[in-house]
Amino acid sequence: MSEPTTATAATSASAADLAARARALDAADELGKHREKFALGGGSGQEDAGVYLDGNSLGALPAHVPARLADVVARQWGELRIRSWDESGWWTAPERIGDRIAPLVGAAEGQIVVGDSTSVNVFKAVVAATRLADGGRDEILVDATTFPTDGYIAESAARLTGHRIVPLDPAGIPGAVTDRTALALVNHVDYRSGRLQDLPGITAALHEAGALAVWDLCHSAGALPVGLDAHGVDLAVGCTYKYLNGGPGAPAYLYVAERHQDRFDSPLPGWNSHADPFGMTPGYRAADGAARGRVGTPDILSMLALEAALDVWDGVRIEDVRAKSLALTDFFLECVRVYAPGGRVTAVTPEAHAERGSQVALRCAEAPAVMAELIRRGVVGDLRRPDILRFGFTPLYVGFADVERAARTLADVLADIPPAGA
Amino acid sequence: MSEPTTATAATSASAADLAARARALDAADELGKHREKFALGGGSGQEDAGVYLDGNSLGALPAHVPARLADVVARQWGELRIRSWDESGWWTAPERIGDRIAPLVGAAEGQIVVGDSTSVNVFKAVVAATRLADGGRDEILVDATTFPTDGYIAESAARLTGHRIVPLDPAGIPGAVTDRTALALVNHVDYRSGRLQDLPGITAALHEAGALAVWDLCHSAGALPVGLDAHGVDLAVGCTYKYLNGGPGAPAYLYVAERHQDRFDSPLPGWNSHADPFGMTPGYRAADGAARGRVGTPDILSMLALEAALDVWDGVRIEDVRAKSLALTDFFLECVRVYAPGGRVTAVTPEAHAERGSQVALRCAEAPAVMAELIRRGVVGDLRRPDILRFGFTPLYVGFADVERAARTLADVLADIPPAGA
Repeated sequence: MSEPTTATAATSASAADLAARARALDAADELGKHREKFALGGGSGQEDAGVYLDGNSLGALPAHVPARLADVVARQWGELRIRSWDESGWWTAPERIGDRIAPLVGAAEGQIVVGDSTSVNVFKAVVAATRLADGGRDEILVDATTFPTDGYIAESAARLTGHRIVPLDPAGIPGAVTDRTALALVNHVDYRSGRLQDLPGITAALHEAGALAVWDLCHSAGALPVGLDAHGVDLAVGCTYKYLNGGPGAPAYLYVAERHQDRFDSPLPGWNSHADPFGMTPGYRAADGAARGRVGTPDILSMLALEAALDVWDGVRIEDVRAKSLALTDFFLECVRVYAPGGRVTAVTPEAHAERGSQVALRCAEAPAVMAELIRRGVVGDLRRPDILRFGFTPLYVGFADVERAARTLADVLADIPPAGA
Repeated sequence: MSEPTTATAATSASAADLAARARALDAADELGKHREKFALGGGSGQEDAGVYLDGNSLGALPAHVPARLADVVARQWGELRIRSWDESGWWTAPERIGDRIAPLVGAAEGQIVVGDSTSVNVFKAVVAATRLADGGRDEILVDATTFPTDGYIAESAARLTGHRIVPLDPAGIPGAVTDRTALALVNHVDYRSGRLQDLPGITAALHEAGALAVWDLCHSAGALPVGLDAHGVDLAVGCTYKYLNGGPGAPAYLYVAERHQDRFDSPLPGWNSHADPFGMTPGYRAADGAARGRVGTPDILSMLALEAALDVWDGVRIEDVRAKSLALTDFFLECVRVYAPGGRVTAVTPEAHAERGSQVALRCAEAPAVMAELIRRGVVGDLRRPDILRFGFTPLYVGFADVERAARTLADVLADIPPAGA
């Protein structure tokens, strides 16, 4: 592929070489020690834990979370009950946990609030961005390759606010933004191809034309540096159940840049975002700061499981995570090239590091059958219909031996499943 | 108060009489056996568990929930991981749990979906109701005494859809509804006073004028029969962390009457409400049935804690719960009348059974100090500023001896805290 030295190595590499390389890479891996923080066993009766390459869909369980959540349930809810809103810090959890996520996405404190689903936060962000935008701007640019919920929700926001949706490839945004553009909603990493979009460049192009940048970080937060503040992003949303390991359906988050907070005008002004929530007055008056992005009563059990899960990041630099992520995906691409029968799979994920997230997507005509068999053999990725095999690499708990094994198993499966039409 | 026989009893009753009455009432209480299903201990080191009369804010922990949630975390998330979306029934949880709530609010299956906060569901319901309403109807009637989030969210929905908010007392709705009324949003039980609104009468009056009825069931579901289907309610929302004991911030629910489902047009059409969510197509096509009310990925930990919590309703008739609830609040009002120093507290909750929910609100000039001291002495109610002492009675775990003790402790506290200005 793009790097000549790798291509040369690939042509001459053998399975034994790659297995040895994997061992050496794991031995030198500074992040490898974090693997023990996660529950990666296969469960009772299963000796082999397999290889989990679906952390870009649902992150693995941090091993200390069950005990922490058990305390939340049995003591905070069961014994303290209503007192826990104050005494156990339930009330302040959305901003407190937002501040834990902030350094991972390059945000200073006080700009992120946790709660609701990603879809609901996309709605808040898009409607609020139309209200922050200068008058007369009636277009919303939407990443046409985006995870579909963003497009559906943006369409609904446009319908309610009288805007027009312009779907386009993110690379086309700098050329498409005009004085009619209110905002663009873009995924930082494409959920299907794993392509990393140019957040600094697209944001700058939008700003130059007087438009706002709203980024969806679902597939980048926790896998690579985002630099929200450094690049002047206006609003952002993300989920916490992928690379942040917060648990199934864990609450999402909303980032509102400090300079916009005073004029952030939420379409979901629930009582939790009121300046004096327990005044319970009939008139709405928005809270200052990140709390303005709240809506209703926060979902405490899921939220505090997420808070506990974030402990795995203590002492971890996101730049180191990114370096290992690229090494893992490089190595996977190399192993696939060496092991997999010619022509059966094609990488959809870009080779260039600057354009790659933390997953590898392979196009394969027999993708549904291949993924089912891979999972049966203990290598868990996922399928994106009709023909994408998707493998996510979470640097805190995936090692290079996992990568080599996954590629080798894929080759075995491809050898056992005849090509379509054969 | 209103019933002469009670008034006569009250004047002659003594503490000994009331304590004996409480014992007899508890002995005859068919629902008393359910109390053992809940964790009501005071926690380590506390011998006396106290009296918990705040289940109308946060329901007590059902004792079997911790073990069930531990299994969800350690096995379903920790071991099965992504496979649990199918194998552990995560994907179908929102409708499955909706169907568990349905009989408690008088709904047939297939009309309730669980997810998001009450505020977010109010938004869905109000916007969708404006779209279901006949064209040209530009007014939304809103219960002016309502829990404030409903009013704030309705105001936002009105702003986005070009409607006008008309705030009024719920009793005034039948006289105010016109051919300009699209819908009314009403709380079934007022969170502050505990007044039960006339759901059948108000719904019928709205329908007679061609308008829709949207009810908020936060303070009635699980405490009294609602009869959504029987009374022809159009849309309803409710929380699950009060009388349904689902846990702090547990997901709320949305009811869309079957006859409206085909035309239910959500302002939050997230990918989970798509007819083919894993098709991940750019065009939105709404799912059939209750699933159309979904938005994003469901919050599994909180949702499955709620599902477990609903087991306490097995074999319980909501009519029996209502009968005990009224007996509890009657007895509390009687005990307060007998014990409390004259003139210090005034019941705000209606005497008439047809107008009373499952709480008693007492106005008291010294309410903040009184409630703080009550809690210190083990009787947990809550305060609604500036001067309301609020006591909720959850028939599944509150008994008559609790009621007598709470009223007696209140009288002691009032005796120890001098009247304002004294």
